Amino acid sequence: MIHKISGGVTAPKGFQAACCAAGIKYQNRTDMAMLYSVSPCAVAGTFTRNLVKAAPVQWDMDVVYQEKTAQAVVVNAGIANAATGKTGLEICRATAEHTAKKLNIPEKSVLLGSTGVIGPNLPLDRIVFGVDCMSKTLSDTREAGTAASKAIMTTDTVNKEFAVEFFLPSADGSGDVPVRVGGMSKGSGMIHPNMCTMLGYLTTDCAIDQALLQKALSTVVPDTFNMISVDGDTSTNDTLLLLANGQAGNKPVTQEDESYALFLKALFLICRDLAVRMAGDGEGATKLIEMRVYNADTKENARALAKSVIGSSLVKAMVFGKDANCGRILCALGYAGPAFDPEKIEVFLHGEKETLCFYTDGCVQDFDEEKALAILSESQARFSCDMHMGDQEATAWGCDLTYDYVKINGDYRS
Amino acid sequence: MIHKISGGVTAPKGFQAACCAAGIKYQNRTDMAMLYSVSPCAVAGTFTRNLVKAAPVQWDMDVVYQEKTAQAVVVNAGIANAATGKTGLEICRATAEHTAKKLNIPEKSVLLGSTGVIGPNLPLDRIVFGVDCMSKTLSDTREAGTAASKAIMTTDTVNKEFAVEFFLPSADGSGDVPVRVGGMSKGSGMIHPNMCTMLGYLTTDCAIDQALLQKALSTVVPDTFNMISVDGDTSTNDTLLLLANGQAGNKPVTQEDESYALFLKALFLICRDLAVRMAGDGEGATKLIEMRVYNADTKENARALAKSVIGSSLVKAMVFGKDANCGRILCALGYAGPAFDPEKIEVFLHGEKETLCFYTDGCVQDFDEEKALAILSESQARFSCDMHMGDQEATAWGCDLTYDYVKINGDYRS
Repeated sequence: MIHKISGGVTAPKGFQAACCAAGIKYQNRTDMAMLYSVSPCAVAGTFTRNLVKAAPVQWDMDVVYQEKTAQAVVVNAGIANAATGKTGLEICRATAEHTAKKLNIPEKSVLLGSTGVIGPNLPLDRIVFGVDCMSKTLSDTREAGTAASKAIMTTDTVNKEFAVEFFLPSADGSGDVPVRVGGMSKGSGMIHPNMCTMLGYLTTDCAIDQALLQKALSTVVPDTFNMISVDGDTSTNDTLLLLANGQAGNKPVTQEDESYALFLKALFLICRDLAVRMAGDGEGATKLIEMRVYNADTKENARALAKSVIGSSLVKAMVFGKDANCGRILCALGYAGPAFDPEKIEVFLHGEKETLCFYTDGCVQDFDEEKALAILSESQARFSCDMHMGDQEATAWGCDLTYDYVKINGDYRS
Repeated sequence: MIHKISGGVTAPKGFQAACCAAGIKYQNRTDMAMLYSVSPCAVAGTFTRNLVKAAPVQWDMDVVYQEKTAQAVVVNAGIANAATGKTGLEICRATAEHTAKKLNIPEKSVLLGSTGVIGPNLPLDRIVFGVDCMSKTLSDTREAGTAASKAIMTTDTVNKEFAVEFFLPSADGSGDVPVRVGGMSKGSGMIHPNMCTMLGYLTTDCAIDQALLQKALSTVVPDTFNMISVDGDTSTNDTLLLLANGQAGNKPVTQEDESYALFLKALFLICRDLAVRMAGDGEGATKLIEMRVYNADTKENARALAKSVIGSSLVKAMVFGKDANCGRILCALGYAGPAFDPEKIEVFLHGEKETLCFYTDGCVQDFDEEKALAILSESQARFSCDMHMGDQEATAWGCDLTYDYVKINGDYRS
């Protein structure tokens, strides 16, 4: 029903992308990206719950909540434009104004995103230079989307993009038409999304009501981007935007029917994929950690328990060291908050071929250390916990804690 | 009024200590300690809020909440006796029974403590051997107290002990008598106390009502042990015990009068000192981080803000790297939970000779990078934040995040 297709933000019809090396902070690499839709889009967004909100977050919240439509996004990497006061907001306004003039669209239909060091001001001359370049080189090719996903990276080691396709009834009643959702995201440190991720941009050519678009986004975020953590630090810049331009020609989705359900499922797939890739590419990470909690009493408790485990520094360090010090998982479940009986839960370590139960009946079990080492030497560390309390479940993703995380973050500004 | 004296748990009258190398896990070092009072003590305690409570924690909670008196403590390092089910509790009972027989005191007046790896069972034969040795070598010398504080260390690099003296009216009305409070603690990783610390043992010869003793302990813990964090992981074994044997001969403290106030102040000093030393000796740490939040609207909010900063992996890594990436402090304040206006707060970095304001009026300030580097090269990293909201304050202590933390915790069990 829903299948993966190649590409990212330019996979849906009518979306173009561009990038350039504006020299904002990084040298010898692209550091700005632009997205543009050939027609105005319904827009939905989720933003950081950090009280200290970066200037572009404040700008975007205004566009998403007041205007509810947009047609372009301008993003830079290197400087976060956070804790920059009135100057930061003025730079946002000037960037949007210049972009609007170049693209011949309203100023308030330009969304902005920044990622990088908190504190410094953005150099407006470099931003203007970048907007000039990019507005002339917009393209709807797959390559343009991929290049944009690379331009927004900071300490990311790989770019993250994903796209899916499914079919909905056409607007003219002539049959089914393909509908696509594409996306890109970045995020490597200061990753503990609260309502959304560091920076994520999703596009779709689906014709869908704006309120439903926002509802769909708000529905999938709690089980995708909000279930990952690299270091427990909720960023000042977290922004996830979803633009829908209706170019697919489907019968507009205006209620929570089968078409909406299919769109929601496609959105979930793309958000989960991008989120998991962000977790696995956490700063300094050598591998992804997955924690699934099932048979929990409530969804909320399942989420809290799973997130506590993937957020534990001791669990993260043990995965890096391939040391099956499994008591630490028990410990992290125990301080997560939700009530449970430690005598009744079971905890497992899952390898590609084998599963070890290392805790049951209130005791850490004697397990085969060699098998545990072999499993922890695989490319992912997957744990699960059967709560034996109900039928709710949740999965969280994180990464190991390594020497390189300390190295990267001991000297991030230089 | 209250002055520091040398020594630790044996500084108060009538307390004896011993230690031995029982070979429980570590080789070629002492790994068990015993405390004994010549007369029964009123006892107070605070324990981990982790749902997964180690067997000795369950045992001690029973003694403290039901018996309310105790006369001896037996502690081992190397194995935590946590997640060990019924076997773990049986080992606790057998240890207490054997100790009681050797010291000729009731079984339920023996408190127990364990620290180390979660999961394995304690070897009862080694414990019995240790109890036999220690019960014959109890001593009230300062050296015996110091040796005990070393025997309970795990990855700690220094032992932690402290003692103070003050004067209270004597019981016979003949004048004032000296009253002492002493203590020792250990803790280096899995340190994020919730109601108390990893392992802490306090002694006093003060004659004081048990209910007041517990009240005093519960009063000081929220601003001392509960304000430190090494890695955000609340242990399964956190235990803080306070034994009062009344040997000072003071007029018993039975109400919240001046004597109680003085005792409370002494207890605060000793708990703060031990807590700060635990934070500074966090696993792999090169320096202590202090965050003071003042002029906050409520005490609770001040605590939450201060703890958020010292718990941030990014702040911790930046202190290790001596990189004044001060936006990270803003970020950690912003996601702490309490509401505040980012435009109105001020954040400072305090050196021994100089203070830098690096955030005010909603903007990270241009500060002298060389001065910041010089301050961050000092032995402590001290930050503060003026909330400009009220008159409440709190201070939290943590440590930097280093390569050695990752190394220690990637291979803790071996």
